[in-house]
Amino acid sequence: MFLTPAEAVSVRERYGTPCYVYDRAAIDEAARRALAFPHAYGLIVRYALKANSNRGVLAILRDLGLHIDASSDPEVDRTLRAGFSPERIMLTSQVPSSRLEEFVAEGILYNACSLHQLDRFGQLCSGRDVTIRVNPGLGSGSSHRVNTGGPAASFGIWHEYLEDARSLAVRRGVTIRGLHAHIGSGSDPAIWARAARLVLDLAGRLPEVATVSLGGGFKVARVAGEEETDLAALGAVAREAFVDFKRRTGRALHLEVEPGAYLVANAGVVVATCVDVVDTGAGGYLFAKLDAGMTEVARPSLYGAQHPIDVLADGRRAASVVFVGPCCEAGDLLTPAPGDAGTIAPRQVPRPEIGDLVLIGGAGAYCAAMSTINYNSYPAAPEVIRDSEGQFRLVRRRQTLEQMLANEA
Amino acid sequence: MFLTPAEAVSVRERYGTPCYVYDRAAIDEAARRALAFPHAYGLIVRYALKANSNRGVLAILRDLGLHIDASSDPEVDRTLRAGFSPERIMLTSQVPSSRLEEFVAEGILYNACSLHQLDRFGQLCSGRDVTIRVNPGLGSGSSHRVNTGGPAASFGIWHEYLEDARSLAVRRGVTIRGLHAHIGSGSDPAIWARAARLVLDLAGRLPEVATVSLGGGFKVARVAGEEETDLAALGAVAREAFVDFKRRTGRALHLEVEPGAYLVANAGVVVATCVDVVDTGAGGYLFAKLDAGMTEVARPSLYGAQHPIDVLADGRRAASVVFVGPCCEAGDLLTPAPGDAGTIAPRQVPRPEIGDLVLIGGAGAYCAAMSTINYNSYPAAPEVIRDSEGQFRLVRRRQTLEQMLANEA
Repeated sequence: MFLTPAEAVSVRERYGTPCYVYDRAAIDEAARRALAFPHAYGLIVRYALKANSNRGVLAILRDLGLHIDASSDPEVDRTLRAGFSPERIMLTSQVPSSRLEEFVAEGILYNACSLHQLDRFGQLCSGRDVTIRVNPGLGSGSSHRVNTGGPAASFGIWHEYLEDARSLAVRRGVTIRGLHAHIGSGSDPAIWARAARLVLDLAGRLPEVATVSLGGGFKVARVAGEEETDLAALGAVAREAFVDFKRRTGRALHLEVEPGAYLVANAGVVVATCVDVVDTGAGGYLFAKLDAGMTEVARPSLYGAQHPIDVLADGRRAASVVFVGPCCEAGDLLTPAPGDAGTIAPRQVPRPEIGDLVLIGGAGAYCAAMSTINYNSYPAAPEVIRDSEGQFRLVRRRQTLEQMLANEA
Repeated sequence: MFLTPAEAVSVRERYGTPCYVYDRAAIDEAARRALAFPHAYGLIVRYALKANSNRGVLAILRDLGLHIDASSDPEVDRTLRAGFSPERIMLTSQVPSSRLEEFVAEGILYNACSLHQLDRFGQLCSGRDVTIRVNPGLGSGSSHRVNTGGPAASFGIWHEYLEDARSLAVRRGVTIRGLHAHIGSGSDPAIWARAARLVLDLAGRLPEVATVSLGGGFKVARVAGEEETDLAALGAVAREAFVDFKRRTGRALHLEVEPGAYLVANAGVVVATCVDVVDTGAGGYLFAKLDAGMTEVARPSLYGAQHPIDVLADGRRAASVVFVGPCCEAGDLLTPAPGDAGTIAPRQVPRPEIGDLVLIGGAGAYCAAMSTINYNSYPAAPEVIRDSEGQFRLVRRRQTLEQMLANEA
């Protein structure tokens, strides 16, 4: 946790709780590591802004030189408003863009994620260059589990249909300049090497491809014992594969990668207040109720994700504590067993008392962006950035009740 | 599904997709069943609005005579704005109310959910009546799984501390008039009878208690094979327990119940559009990508909940289809295996084509109210009510990008 107890007090006084705080220095540091990703013939690092689309965060990454991986039409809008030039934005969406011609005319890059998307691009933007997302048939888990690659993944053009994509592009008069494969392979250099080779094999069949994106999905260690991706190790195997590809084909391909969580996950905390402490007797549990929960950090409820939790109470004796959120919902649990959202897993922490400040770490990615916002009618929490000088700057105000109800007739 | 194909077409034309549609007749019918809950000495049915807090839905239930179970301060605000008189509202919140004196002065009923809440009530509202929520020690599952009752539940005052609550009330000069126990016991009359007896035993130790709430958690069958609670059967065993209690103690207790999903779950559908169809080869899956997913219906992603899905394509040949949402997220899956959000479970449906209308049923409860709103920057979908005459009435407009970004500095 990057916040000092005194800073957490100051955040609560100025902005109330719950409140997200992002650390500029931590984002800078992660971005530097990502920009140093080893490569053979050029590199673009695209930030996958679905992880955290706050304008202040985007501005930091814009100034550091990152490009953008946008997942939807409105994400393109957010990125443009944050000052990214169109040519730094690539749109990779499950949903065919409803503003394709407008975006492409502006200079935004388009990554067709299905044969249908490629066909539409060809109809509306004939003569242009395009990237295609492929599913190389390799995923990170079993073939019946949800996945970003392999047979259980809906993302991209299935590798067996590459020839269909190629002939469709020819027929529609568009040029496939880029090949994209995000399989979420995580941390294992051996799997990454295999994925890179699979994708390069596909690139070998598309002679006009100049850029290959290997996507993101780099792992971040939020709590002790979790494995963090060693970007240098992954990059080394990717570089080797690209060099080998050039040796065989004469083609020097540019590399793109798309980190999301990697850039911001550990740069964020939620400052929360312990609002109640209850227990269920001698054979039961001790619960700390926070004013933050699945409405701010839904990853534990969604898939048993682990977030570090600090109780700011130095010298207090330790206790085994279950942390729950503010919602009248059994699943509003911040401390599930790893990978098992439905099972309670107490943490050893200083025994919380009502009024204590509690920090939930690892909250920079997929928290403000992916939570059950407004459940139990709680307003969306504010977001604050701690800048390089250690000053706090409000980058999103707390939602008001009027705003929450504004669209009700 | 209550919508005809022609109506679904009309909804898409008028409001676009995705769009929630709620059916007034279905709400009326469910409310009538709930209001007919068997009882011995009086009944209040409180709608747990966290299930669906849309103002139009609240207005329907207000006119039908229901009372309100509010889970948070802002839910109290929403209910008052929807025209409920304060004395029909009870606040039962995990978070101690920050507006306790104001609410109580207005006439809102307060249900203290912990010893701390009871103590605060006593300090701020001495001389007043209060209800306490107890955890009678009985839950619906194992003792390590998230639960609304039993040792793994943080809700309510643990039954072993009833004497502490009683003496605290005496000391603070407040009267415990109501006892509340929502254990989410679901459908089994035998478990319900046991829960009712446990709670009545506690009521026996609090001589001033006049009302006992047995909470809600009544099950709704969204898909074939799911069990729906038989309210008449539960009510019969509860009535028997209340009659027996009067025989033993002379006290005729009023009954309260708190249905949420029961009243609205099957009164809602999401009208969606199939925006793409892809497959992963002979050994893989056929995917239909919808413009609705975890951003509108997160229950499948949260706990493998089952929602019926209809493809409006009469006469089309059947296929085994995995339905996914619009987000760039492996977990944005509408058809997981039951109780297992991470495993893909295809459905037999008419083979979808791009542009098809698709209805997601059982979407009246915990969908608009509990989803990963704005993930991938998709705007919150509109909500529409089909009134008694079959007319559609927009009760919440689609969120705009400007609204989504309004609080960014």
